[in-house]
Amino acid sequence: MSSIRVLNPISSELKQIDRLLAEYLKTPLGEIQPLNFHTVEKTGKKLRPAITILFGRICGLDEERMLKLGACFELLHTSTLIHDDVIDNAPTRRGHATHNAKWDNTLSVLYGDFVFSSAMRLAVELKDIGALEEISRITRELVSGELLQNATAFDFPPVQERYFDIIRLKTAVLFGGCCGIPLLLCKGREKADIGFEIGEHIGFAFQLIDDCLDYIADDKLGKPRLIDLEEGKATMPVLLALEKGNATVTHIVKEVFQNRKLSEKDGEKLTLELRDGGFLAETIQLAKDKIHQALSLLDSFPEDRYTGLFRKICTFITERDF
Amino acid sequence: MSSIRVLNPISSELKQIDRLLAEYLKTPLGEIQPLNFHTVEKTGKKLRPAITILFGRICGLDEERMLKLGACFELLHTSTLIHDDVIDNAPTRRGHATHNAKWDNTLSVLYGDFVFSSAMRLAVELKDIGALEEISRITRELVSGELLQNATAFDFPPVQERYFDIIRLKTAVLFGGCCGIPLLLCKGREKADIGFEIGEHIGFAFQLIDDCLDYIADDKLGKPRLIDLEEGKATMPVLLALEKGNATVTHIVKEVFQNRKLSEKDGEKLTLELRDGGFLAETIQLAKDKIHQALSLLDSFPEDRYTGLFRKICTFITERDF
Repeated sequence: MSSIRVLNPISSELKQIDRLLAEYLKTPLGEIQPLNFHTVEKTGKKLRPAITILFGRICGLDEERMLKLGACFELLHTSTLIHDDVIDNAPTRRGHATHNAKWDNTLSVLYGDFVFSSAMRLAVELKDIGALEEISRITRELVSGELLQNATAFDFPPVQERYFDIIRLKTAVLFGGCCGIPLLLCKGREKADIGFEIGEHIGFAFQLIDDCLDYIADDKLGKPRLIDLEEGKATMPVLLALEKGNATVTHIVKEVFQNRKLSEKDGEKLTLELRDGGFLAETIQLAKDKIHQALSLLDSFPEDRYTGLFRKICTFITERDF
Repeated sequence: MSSIRVLNPISSELKQIDRLLAEYLKTPLGEIQPLNFHTVEKTGKKLRPAITILFGRICGLDEERMLKLGACFELLHTSTLIHDDVIDNAPTRRGHATHNAKWDNTLSVLYGDFVFSSAMRLAVELKDIGALEEISRITRELVSGELLQNATAFDFPPVQERYFDIIRLKTAVLFGGCCGIPLLLCKGREKADIGFEIGEHIGFAFQLIDDCLDYIADDKLGKPRLIDLEEGKATMPVLLALEKGNATVTHIVKEVFQNRKLSEKDGEKLTLELRDGGFLAETIQLAKDKIHQALSLLDSFPEDRYTGLFRKICTFITERDF
């Protein structure tokens, strides 16, 4: 199931995804199963499988491969979150204890690998070399994005071009796969390329909003606000302020990147500046532009209840507060 | 190239493996390339690609897939070593600085994922679903072995059956793939199953000797001796001593598992006991038995220079001191 109400019409498919996640993580090794239970219980919005299901329906992909592909993407995403949480030493995600908090870093690193390998197991079951080539590319780009983000963390001044590289790799390409691979599996390369493009736009939008939520989210997100900067990530709202030469933001970012600590006072000052300077609004507008580009491309597909639902997800992405 | 002299007859193939490793790790992201250079420069014995090449030659597998499969296994193995070194906080491996020592834990965890994804990229290029199913199984078992080893670390009394599960998963199945998958790709399931079995025997032997070397190796191994016990791993020589009720070994293992520290004096006492009690010799004998089982199965293949070379590798495995 998902916590996004707009996905209610595909709730039975999402239940099948939950079943597949449990089934493909399952192992006879009793020592590993408690970590699996924690994973399956604490999954999030399941936005990636939802989009995969919608594009699977749009192009008439068979049920089995549609669900396996959706579950594969969810596990791929989950495995990067598990490693992310170890790296960031995060105690909670979505309001629940992380694997590293409940077990330890050692076990969580290896368990992330296990989830990754379970995703590969699902991918292989698609039994399609073309799709596997794309999934392998996406996986490598996803991991490269995480790596690039960490390799450039705390760089000052941060480079806007690198930020776009990072969010394309770490977020957009996977959304690209959710839309593109169902099309590749049943409509061929040309349609698939439109799908990849639609998905990448959506992914960019999703990440831009995510980066705003770090500055404006409330408890619903289930994670502390204002963590990106302390982790050395200058995201879009900050990059826009730096570009405009905003003195307050420049000063705070420099300080945080030097001391790796953001005081509550500076955090409030920064948030206020990003809001009042219009930098958050500008970032949200960029996200909306991306969604607009995605929806224009969607016009080449016949309207039906699934394209309709996809449009609603797009609205959700820019208007969500979690 | 490899540091094992017995592999000289396939040195040109191993050079091709080096080339493939560099090619498939390569990325346009300048931030990641230094980690790649370090990986390619510091590779070890390349025993897994060597065995893959020999079985490729034995069954007449085409050059391209033989080399890609060998490189895939080497990267898969390398990715687990990178995560292992992070977990064990190891400063060196094979006498060279580890990735985590040269960079940091964060980057090394993500870089391990990157190497893993590069292995998958090579696997997909085999363009064979049957082989991919096996590689995906092997990958998952490999990771499960690492996970199981860490989940049961410091358990007292250690369980011999669990030890065999661990070394089968973390070591033997990958060697199984080196022998079995070339056969699967060109001789079908029945021959492949013999290959998997041969490789697993070899892998068991390799790990049993590796576990002895922790107690008897000299500087050539390029890593400190006596680290297994401090990491909570009771390996075969120790398990045999415990099984025989050896009081000295039982006492020391209990102490180390409680305090996670082995004094130099206790280390010497333990090594002496394992040697004089015949437990190291018994472990080496077990390894030789495994090699014998592998070589009996090899008799079903016509003798040629490649089976001959494989027999020499088997001798190397039990007689090596690094």
